[in-house]
Amino acid sequence: MRKVAVCAPATPLKREYAEAVTALAAKDFPEIELYFHDQCFVEEGHFAGSDKVRLDALLECANAPEFDAVWFAKGGYGSNRIATDFLGKASAEAGRKTYLGYSDCGTLLGGLYRARIGHPVHAPMPVDIKRDGGDEAVRRVLGWMGGDAEGLEQGLTGRPAAAFNLYTLAMLVGTRLMPALDGHELLIEEVGEYEYAIDRLMFHLVEHLHDVAGIRLGEVTAVPENDRPFGADAEQIVQYWCEKSGITYLGRAAIGHSSANRIVPFGLEA
Amino acid sequence: MRKVAVCAPATPLKREYAEAVTALAAKDFPEIELYFHDQCFVEEGHFAGSDKVRLDALLECANAPEFDAVWFAKGGYGSNRIATDFLGKASAEAGRKTYLGYSDCGTLLGGLYRARIGHPVHAPMPVDIKRDGGDEAVRRVLGWMGGDAEGLEQGLTGRPAAAFNLYTLAMLVGTRLMPALDGHELLIEEVGEYEYAIDRLMFHLVEHLHDVAGIRLGEVTAVPENDRPFGADAEQIVQYWCEKSGITYLGRAAIGHSSANRIVPFGLEA
Repeated sequence: MRKVAVCAPATPLKREYAEAVTALAAKDFPEIELYFHDQCFVEEGHFAGSDKVRLDALLECANAPEFDAVWFAKGGYGSNRIATDFLGKASAEAGRKTYLGYSDCGTLLGGLYRARIGHPVHAPMPVDIKRDGGDEAVRRVLGWMGGDAEGLEQGLTGRPAAAFNLYTLAMLVGTRLMPALDGHELLIEEVGEYEYAIDRLMFHLVEHLHDVAGIRLGEVTAVPENDRPFGADAEQIVQYWCEKSGITYLGRAAIGHSSANRIVPFGLEA
Repeated sequence: MRKVAVCAPATPLKREYAEAVTALAAKDFPEIELYFHDQCFVEEGHFAGSDKVRLDALLECANAPEFDAVWFAKGGYGSNRIATDFLGKASAEAGRKTYLGYSDCGTLLGGLYRARIGHPVHAPMPVDIKRDGGDEAVRRVLGWMGGDAEGLEQGLTGRPAAAFNLYTLAMLVGTRLMPALDGHELLIEEVGEYEYAIDRLMFHLVEHLHDVAGIRLGEVTAVPENDRPFGADAEQIVQYWCEKSGITYLGRAAIGHSSANRIVPFGLEA
């Protein structure tokens, strides 16, 4: 892809991060043209603008014929409030694009995948430039946009795959946005949740999953310390629920809320 | 009811709280006999004993012919890990009992209601004795056990009702434990969640609710301060999602994680 539109379906991006990503792309990936929609920088309470402002910007980027891809600037929370309306108004142009992001924006990736609109891809976002080693995460995406497979998650086996933040996916299951994941390797990751909360989310998730090929666990970072130890770590928790529900646990994956986060195209696109 | 068994399907109770509740009951409600199962005080990591220990104690209390009711000692997290096995092993004796609790134990109340086993009742728990005014919360339950309707939520209209912690209910929807709530007034409350998290849970909840008579909002307490204001308070959030999904918003309710928490028998039992 050559021309990439960036918008913020959830929370706003700082201008300095957009500038840093633009500078990095101009220097090392001159074949990629990045267009940051002004909506990325709008602030309204928690969100990057009202539902209408975020929806309009997303539709503008997705439905415009001149772009090859839509890159979500940042997660945070809020994509779910506009996802259904977005899918209902996506044009044929939107169906030819690649959509990249993760975390809260997994709601959009999931909804697009269910609706079979375009090519959803779990990938680092412009906001990741702020992390230690964040330029590497951004380079991974820009490189992949230019045709370099280096940034792909290395454990993808050729079976269809999908990747989600666990909490985001737990809020997606059973909704009108949830894609069927039968036969898929499901990669999950989490950030900032207590172990008991991870356990609770896994309970909910496995009750809703049917016939996935298995679950792989990405990074689980910034787990807060509770008033007492839970008695199992994140991997043991995921193994517990996989075993209890008859889902195959397939080991670890290189996705997560860190600069090590790798690219997972949904489906068989890898 | 006269003889009440107390067990802890989630996290352990401190002995001093059991003693305080026992003393209060002995003094002012001599017609009620409380039996605290020793499992209430077992500690294993996060839980009041392993899944097996908690399940066995719950089954012992529920299946014993000598008790009229099972009162859950404390929430916290963990009922969901034993709920399905419990329902599968509940006896005819279990079907004659009343079950009281709230918060995480809403998972059991919901599962019992779905399975039509006994009489699930949203009510304060022994652990509430520790709160400011907690003895009033405990008196409310002991009084109700003795036949006093004073402690009931005062807005119950004669339509069937059910009451849940929002997060607990969001983890219940779509699972094998979720009861049909068609025609019910659904009372929800929350504690300790960010407003954006409440918004996200409401998104998930309304996607799963079908034909409820409406939603009433209880207390929303201990909302943490986020790095920026959300832009709407809990009641506005609930109204937003009710409006978006065509659910009637029925106003406030006197339930929550405080000593003001009132009693809501599930169904038409009020």
